[in-house]
Amino acid sequence: MSPMEKFEVHILGCGSALPTLRHNATSQVVNIREKLFMIDCGEGTQVQLRRSRLRFNKLNHIFISHLHGDHCFGLMGLISTFGMLERTAALHIYAHPQLEELLKPQLDFFCKGLPFQVVFHPFDPARREVIYDDRSVSVETIPLRHRLPTAGFLFREKPTMNHIRRDMIDYYQIPTYLINRIKNGEDFVTDEGVTVPNDRLTFPSAPPRTYAYCSDTAYLPQIAGQIKGADLLFHEATFASDNEARARQTQHSTAAQAARTARDAQVRQLVIGHFSARYEDETPLLQEAQAIFPHTTLAREGMTIPIESR
Amino acid sequence: MSPMEKFEVHILGCGSALPTLRHNATSQVVNIREKLFMIDCGEGTQVQLRRSRLRFNKLNHIFISHLHGDHCFGLMGLISTFGMLERTAALHIYAHPQLEELLKPQLDFFCKGLPFQVVFHPFDPARREVIYDDRSVSVETIPLRHRLPTAGFLFREKPTMNHIRRDMIDYYQIPTYLINRIKNGEDFVTDEGVTVPNDRLTFPSAPPRTYAYCSDTAYLPQIAGQIKGADLLFHEATFASDNEARARQTQHSTAAQAARTARDAQVRQLVIGHFSARYEDETPLLQEAQAIFPHTTLAREGMTIPIESR
Repeated sequence: MSPMEKFEVHILGCGSALPTLRHNATSQVVNIREKLFMIDCGEGTQVQLRRSRLRFNKLNHIFISHLHGDHCFGLMGLISTFGMLERTAALHIYAHPQLEELLKPQLDFFCKGLPFQVVFHPFDPARREVIYDDRSVSVETIPLRHRLPTAGFLFREKPTMNHIRRDMIDYYQIPTYLINRIKNGEDFVTDEGVTVPNDRLTFPSAPPRTYAYCSDTAYLPQIAGQIKGADLLFHEATFASDNEARARQTQHSTAAQAARTARDAQVRQLVIGHFSARYEDETPLLQEAQAIFPHTTLAREGMTIPIESR
Repeated sequence: MSPMEKFEVHILGCGSALPTLRHNATSQVVNIREKLFMIDCGEGTQVQLRRSRLRFNKLNHIFISHLHGDHCFGLMGLISTFGMLERTAALHIYAHPQLEELLKPQLDFFCKGLPFQVVFHPFDPARREVIYDDRSVSVETIPLRHRLPTAGFLFREKPTMNHIRRDMIDYYQIPTYLINRIKNGEDFVTDEGVTVPNDRLTFPSAPPRTYAYCSDTAYLPQIAGQIKGADLLFHEATFASDNEARARQTQHSTAAQAARTARDAQVRQLVIGHFSARYEDETPLLQEAQAIFPHTTLAREGMTIPIESR
């Protein structure tokens, strides 16, 4: 993928609350056209980020799904490290309002004189709303059901410019300064005053892609409506179906439930993660999910999942 | 070493403030006769503890040298995990008074309903004092010089019982119920009323061992007096001598300075650590230290340093 078409998800950690030697606490980085967006930041995320070789200074936005430690205990270390690396760009954190209250005293003490601003953007996890928007992407919350207020995130790529037809440019001898305007949809008027419609000069760009992140959550069938047709769904699958009662009790999902949501939402691809420490091997979770939704993959640390254009 | 003679130091992390893929943030576990004492608890310590295969439930005391993030950001994760593992024994944390103030709101929020007590034992790092004492060990603070109040820790083993001379027991036909009293120093009186002095019945036990932990600190020659003759010294060596000015400025030590303290204190063995991320290979630090104090070793993650009896 060219940098301007890039849309990929990097798994930094896909374990659940109890960290193991096999899985790190939850964190992901979404790379959309070389802008990095972090989702969740469990303990050890900064080391996983370093391991990923993603560039720290392209990361300006962090989205926290909920305030359980395995989704946010890595923030202090990450922010401290950014300070030591003399970052100057503001770091934006999108989370439940209580995070700022909890983090502020520690930031004031441990990160005195930080060379950059930490800007908190509180949101209400119970409401579906767009909490981030720029030229290339918007991020919308997905209200989830967990033991405390929790939201998933739906990343929607903005449409890209049309692709220019090189043969037509030559044929009509279109000057260079008009190319970007034509890519953006303008028609071309020849010296003779003839209008050449845009669709003769360009191919339409690929349809915008979407990524839905749903963790942590009990099985919640209504998610499917909001994430309909997503190109990629990450859904937690803390347990296999043999632990369905435990899943219900702790408000987590089974692999089968994750797959049901993927099937009902008609997504293109499902990745499951947030595995309970009790599974030494997640193959049974994969099999269980694939029986319902074949295009399922197990998350693992260090994995990059490209979202190809259709 | 038999469990009752065990005295060893486990290095969980020996990097400095900026974590790398080679080194974890600072943490160590001292195992004294199967009681575990943690020193410092940087981010990622709980995973390193798991990797060490040390038994979590034998760890009841954590000593924090100072309130820089790389020495304490792992506490929240460790405490949460202990909670999930249904620990019931109180966890004692010895630190600057401000740690409780900083941690308390997070503990109340993230660790509601913790099945065990977290007991803070504040101490003044500027004063040399015994902050822990039991039948087998005492821990004394070592005032250090750093950018904020910092103390090292001196672990002093208590003397063990004398070793019984099996041949003398047989010779005098000493009854079993008297053995422990003789090990503890009592004489034996025969049926004829003759007193056999203890030193004919026992060999003296090995002299008690000591471990001194000094991190983080500027070069501080007066440490040598307090840790005189220690069996093992861990001393920070963030830099090599080519960065002596930087060491002075940040109130850290060079490897040569660590070695000078070891030499002046006439310790038996020196381990250096807390390496700056700038060194891809610490051999120059080792060479520099060994030129002054030959019995020097580089710390590394996963290393266990046994302190043998003399």
